[in-house]
Amino acid sequence: MLLERDLIQSVGFRNITDGGRVTGFQFRVRMPSYRGMAASLIDGIAVRVGSIVDVEPDVPLWTFGGRTHTLQQLWDSDGVRWPLEEAAVVTVPLDGGLPQGVHELTIELRLRMSYIPLEHQPSVYRTSRKVTLAPEGGDSSFRYGVSLYSFMGDYGTVMDLEAALAAVADVGATGVEILGEGHIPNYPEPSPAWLDTWFGLLAKYSLEPTNYGSWIDTRLHPGRAMTVAEGSAALQRDLRLAGQLGFGFVRPKIGVVSGDLVPDPIWTESVERSLDLAHELDIIICPEIHSPTPIKHPVVEDYIALIERTGTKNFGLLIDTGIFQDRPIPLREGETRETRPAFLDGIGVDPADFADIAQYVVFIQAKFHDINEQLEDQQIPWLPVLQAIKDSGYTGYLSSEYEGERTPWRATEQVRRQHALIRRIAGELT
Amino acid sequence: MLLERDLIQSVGFRNITDGGRVTGFQFRVRMPSYRGMAASLIDGIAVRVGSIVDVEPDVPLWTFGGRTHTLQQLWDSDGVRWPLEEAAVVTVPLDGGLPQGVHELTIELRLRMSYIPLEHQPSVYRTSRKVTLAPEGGDSSFRYGVSLYSFMGDYGTVMDLEAALAAVADVGATGVEILGEGHIPNYPEPSPAWLDTWFGLLAKYSLEPTNYGSWIDTRLHPGRAMTVAEGSAALQRDLRLAGQLGFGFVRPKIGVVSGDLVPDPIWTESVERSLDLAHELDIIICPEIHSPTPIKHPVVEDYIALIERTGTKNFGLLIDTGIFQDRPIPLREGETRETRPAFLDGIGVDPADFADIAQYVVFIQAKFHDINEQLEDQQIPWLPVLQAIKDSGYTGYLSSEYEGERTPWRATEQVRRQHALIRRIAGELT
Repeated sequence: MLLERDLIQSVGFRNITDGGRVTGFQFRVRMPSYRGMAASLIDGIAVRVGSIVDVEPDVPLWTFGGRTHTLQQLWDSDGVRWPLEEAAVVTVPLDGGLPQGVHELTIELRLRMSYIPLEHQPSVYRTSRKVTLAPEGGDSSFRYGVSLYSFMGDYGTVMDLEAALAAVADVGATGVEILGEGHIPNYPEPSPAWLDTWFGLLAKYSLEPTNYGSWIDTRLHPGRAMTVAEGSAALQRDLRLAGQLGFGFVRPKIGVVSGDLVPDPIWTESVERSLDLAHELDIIICPEIHSPTPIKHPVVEDYIALIERTGTKNFGLLIDTGIFQDRPIPLREGETRETRPAFLDGIGVDPADFADIAQYVVFIQAKFHDINEQLEDQQIPWLPVLQAIKDSGYTGYLSSEYEGERTPWRATEQVRRQHALIRRIAGELT
Repeated sequence: MLLERDLIQSVGFRNITDGGRVTGFQFRVRMPSYRGMAASLIDGIAVRVGSIVDVEPDVPLWTFGGRTHTLQQLWDSDGVRWPLEEAAVVTVPLDGGLPQGVHELTIELRLRMSYIPLEHQPSVYRTSRKVTLAPEGGDSSFRYGVSLYSFMGDYGTVMDLEAALAAVADVGATGVEILGEGHIPNYPEPSPAWLDTWFGLLAKYSLEPTNYGSWIDTRLHPGRAMTVAEGSAALQRDLRLAGQLGFGFVRPKIGVVSGDLVPDPIWTESVERSLDLAHELDIIICPEIHSPTPIKHPVVEDYIALIERTGTKNFGLLIDTGIFQDRPIPLREGETRETRPAFLDGIGVDPADFADIAQYVVFIQAKFHDINEQLEDQQIPWLPVLQAIKDSGYTGYLSSEYEGERTPWRATEQVRRQHALIRRIAGELT
């Protein structure tokens, strides 16, 4: 599993409990040397958290391979190692633990290098990082998930499948969303070995597959339109693969024919031809309602009409919370408000509109762009949005879709902030 | 295999030949979307290389899964895919190919997205990157290798084993060096599955294992020294593992007892007790001569005395070219010349000294820190160094050890520059 570049890892920063009482917190640290080493070469780690915690190097406990040691026990140990490829787990005793939110964590790590003259020893590594404590509590009205779309750009360059799933599980999420053509090697024919890996990791991280993103690429060949036969074949290919991987929802992204995202007319028949298969596989097909399409829109009416006409239980709506965005996404370098699509300023759908379609909504992608250190979302008004969703009786997934700046490793921390934020708000809803 | 973050990959940028004639160049491009897609959705790629090349989007050829297509062939294709996890190989016809060195490569890639309104299509991705053409030619006096130490910090965070070996092979190197405690998961007991992976990748990338870095951690337990029995056990553990992985050289990094790196006296007996095992495994134990230790030094004399005294063929010297550094490594932020070890300014060993010990030298680590776009090394004077090494009759490995700034992905490009540089110089030696 890949590690985050910072020595201090975001994933794994959490309070710990012992017999129901919060007794401290822990976090993971990547080996700063170019090699792993015997753990007896560790000379301790001083830890500071803002003005809350300040402990000497010999206080924290060290966990390697699931076994926990004091510093003295490490010094006496033989065969205990801090491998290059595995982060050490550092535990700091603290009655009651840390408060929820973003903390500035500072470490001073000391390692004894035998090959460096004594006058330059121990080697000391000092670093600080702002990290978000794994969220706790929150209202149980909703289920919490993460889409691996959140890690776009990171996935395959600084993050592998296990690191992604570990990051999802670490926020307390129980559901994971993937993109078929993004996260399944050798799509559409994954190897048996990969299928074993997939199910093994789901079990290891206690995650269930939620929604599977697919595409109906209506512009597949230049110069000619896609036929209904081709459209339904594409959808059915993904339904089968999603079923094989254990997903209950498939979101087909359908090619559009207008500026306000009216889907290609082949969508209706492509979906209708696939409803029996979806039923057989126990999958709900759910196109997304995505900005700039608001809730009150003919596209949404058409989707609902299909449900009413067929009486199907295997088709529903997926709401992307980007439609509730009420403040603009900042302009990127070189971008002007004139040259970029207007909807990036936010189409500001009234959360109250959710009630009108709630009975058809089967899945929610919790789209967001930027959450600051005070856990304030800069674009999405979560309080009214979550209140409206709860009031409607929706009890399904809120599945994170981070869509902000693609700086490496940023998404991992942003997803932690979002879960901390929405779970706090969910806990405060009336 | 992980990809580099830039869309334009360094690894894979090379001239191509057809029937002995250089007919063009190629490079690899990472999929810019968040998903893989059918290759018929590609709308071409315009390519510019400085003032040498400027081709229209429909000119380059595309290779996926080993099969090459024109753009028109992609448009007509079914089932050809550009996966998220694999870079496309783009080939540009160019009689005679590109000259050796660093080039500014600019692309304008076009993809057709069915789910974006036509007025915003195709999606266009423009980017430039300075990349080093895979070196060609060079003198055959030496063998060329790379140590995975070069990728410190990247390895395990932005680079996996296969990406590392692919980067090594792509510069035309035939040898790979690893650090036992760095690159062998579950060291010192790798799993059978990992051993299969190791030998499979060596075969795939036509690489041979060269030198294996180990440690004799004389300060393993605080408050007491290491015994000879412990020292030889440590060495022998790594000799066996190195032998199992196919290495012919083992560099033990021995704990020191002085500011000028005099090794702990247990080294002699630890090594002597291990010579029979080394002989049995056909491995040469080779401690490194590393700055600030120059060639004319008692440590070197002691090593040579062991060889002369025992007549062993299983012990020799490893020279780290950092001893020839004749210009300072720039001060890092917050660093002053007073607070950092003086040897970072370079100890400037005279390359002529190499002749005195050449008969004992079995391996060379080609240490370097920074090579600019004009392929000028900022610290190591390669022309006199390589001339002296060649004159001495050494025909073994020059194994890259990049030790400069640890910005992610920088090492890959620096290693390419070093190989381009030393192979050009090697080709010009008298």
